[in-house]
Amino acid sequence: MDRGPTMIDVAEAASVSLKTVSRYVNGATNINPELAERIREAVQTLGYRRNLAAASIRPGWTSRMLGLIIGDLGNPYYSTLARGVEREVHARGYILTTASSDEDATRNDELVDRMLEQRVDGLIIVPPYTGGRSWADLPPPLPPRVLVDRPAPEGGGYTVLADNAAGAARAVELLVQEGATRIAFVGDSELISTMAERRQGYESALQAAGIAADPALVDHGVHTDEQAEQAVERLLADQGADAVFAANNRASIGALRAFRARGERVPLIGFDDFESAELTSPATTVVSHDIARMGAIAAQTLLTLIDGDEPAALTTVLPVALRRRGSERAAR
Amino acid sequence: MDRGPTMIDVAEAASVSLKTVSRYVNGATNINPELAERIREAVQTLGYRRNLAAASIRPGWTSRMLGLIIGDLGNPYYSTLARGVEREVHARGYILTTASSDEDATRNDELVDRMLEQRVDGLIIVPPYTGGRSWADLPPPLPPRVLVDRPAPEGGGYTVLADNAAGAARAVELLVQEGATRIAFVGDSELISTMAERRQGYESALQAAGIAADPALVDHGVHTDEQAEQAVERLLADQGADAVFAANNRASIGALRAFRARGERVPLIGFDDFESAELTSPATTVVSHDIARMGAIAAQTLLTLIDGDEPAALTTVLPVALRRRGSERAAR
Repeated sequence: MDRGPTMIDVAEAASVSLKTVSRYVNGATNINPELAERIREAVQTLGYRRNLAAASIRPGWTSRMLGLIIGDLGNPYYSTLARGVEREVHARGYILTTASSDEDATRNDELVDRMLEQRVDGLIIVPPYTGGRSWADLPPPLPPRVLVDRPAPEGGGYTVLADNAAGAARAVELLVQEGATRIAFVGDSELISTMAERRQGYESALQAAGIAADPALVDHGVHTDEQAEQAVERLLADQGADAVFAANNRASIGALRAFRARGERVPLIGFDDFESAELTSPATTVVSHDIARMGAIAAQTLLTLIDGDEPAALTTVLPVALRRRGSERAAR
Repeated sequence: MDRGPTMIDVAEAASVSLKTVSRYVNGATNINPELAERIREAVQTLGYRRNLAAASIRPGWTSRMLGLIIGDLGNPYYSTLARGVEREVHARGYILTTASSDEDATRNDELVDRMLEQRVDGLIIVPPYTGGRSWADLPPPLPPRVLVDRPAPEGGGYTVLADNAAGAARAVELLVQEGATRIAFVGDSELISTMAERRQGYESALQAAGIAADPALVDHGVHTDEQAEQAVERLLADQGADAVFAANNRASIGALRAFRARGERVPLIGFDDFESAELTSPATTVVSHDIARMGAIAAQTLLTLIDGDEPAALTTVLPVALRRRGSERAAR
């Protein structure tokens, strides 16, 4: 690509020093107004444009670009998170490069490398449960980073999480209050920390209610809504489940599809709200946190680090709320 | 930020020429294996990393980064589109910077400027209906660009669209077949070309059926699902609408909420599929196209342009399919 006019061309056309053009282009406000006007005219006439990428060879340069790595941009959970991050970083003049790791450790590491090559000023990452390289193995310099939704497999670092165990426990408590004794747990791999924590909340609530946990009622093999539909169908038909705790939005959609296919339902509570939860019959009760807010807090934490300040908290845990809508009750 | 070791450091440590290091780092395969191994070791020992941003001062350099500007990443329509673009560009080794314009022309122009400053290799844009600068007013060099979902207000350029008018006409035809005569149109601003085309399809189907279009049944003021709920409530209560054509997914969700609040429904067909369309009672009939595929085709077109080749088509129009699920029928 032709590189177009340079700052030197602008300086010549405006008959000012290169240093003054540089200060103008980088937003300095204390420039002699007459000179500033000459520079403005030269910029417009020549069609000069900053090259932020090329500027990266200068000390103190920053790309004003941040990186976000999530599981899957096509999952509304993650796109809502990404939107929350985007709003916050755009308001501060940054742009955001977002990429999906598909929970693949190798892919995640490649994306990190690509973003480091682009010299992002910071990274926000949902660490894939399949692990990957340790940050300690990467050569410096490394930009600040914040983990969101899950902690690092190796622990440590700035992290923004939801109170998964408490949320799951609250859901299971309510199903028990409504009379369920064989509550199915349907979710993704136990290696995902959010899933392990939700499972823990499920078991602690059963224990508190004096109900023995039956491993046959637990299915951790559900990554898509089709798999969730099959799992719920099987748990209802073969294991006599009398209620379902759906540990994420995919599992909730799958449970609702299984109910529809069978022509009967059992009490259901899902983790994470979803777009049409209020439109199902009955409306679907969920435990959920504010995902966009989780993204915004991760972005604020990262921007604080980039500014060289100390964030208020190393780990931020967001509360989870119960939204009762009717699906927790038995069919009448 | 400390810039870390350079290619010169690697060349010295490996006792090879700078040119050989450069060829190695940029993926050349015809390098003496012994030299390549020495370079590999030096890269690892020193922790050398390419600086793609700084490399931009070299002729022929490309950022291997593409830009995507959509209306709102938080809307599942756009996040599905973004996911379709992402899959395609990642497979080709590019990363993608995605940003939401919120349909704001000024914001869109700022995002274009930011992406040009980052020297993106290409742009995919959903042009905001509020207009904005003409590309002709921007100084060269400009990277290739593809418009998706809507044509440019000024026309021209590579564009990927859906057959909006035919899809809307098909929906309205079916509602008429089911006995409706006062079909409400609920959608976003008529200034959005997709909305104008869907309105056109709505009117042509009414005309073909010999039904006079009543402007009082049309509401183009609906941007959120809350606004859609209010619009449908009003059209049912005050205008005697006996069916609803919801011109996008926000309008469909709003119509379903209005039905729930009233405790009664009328026949409904929506434009664009949505996650829980199969879970409503009755399941929601939609006309829809493959949004992820639209994104993939836009990405393929852009990558063809970047390669210096001629795309197969200037404008690609994707077919729209009817998915009958029951909501088009009157309540029994």
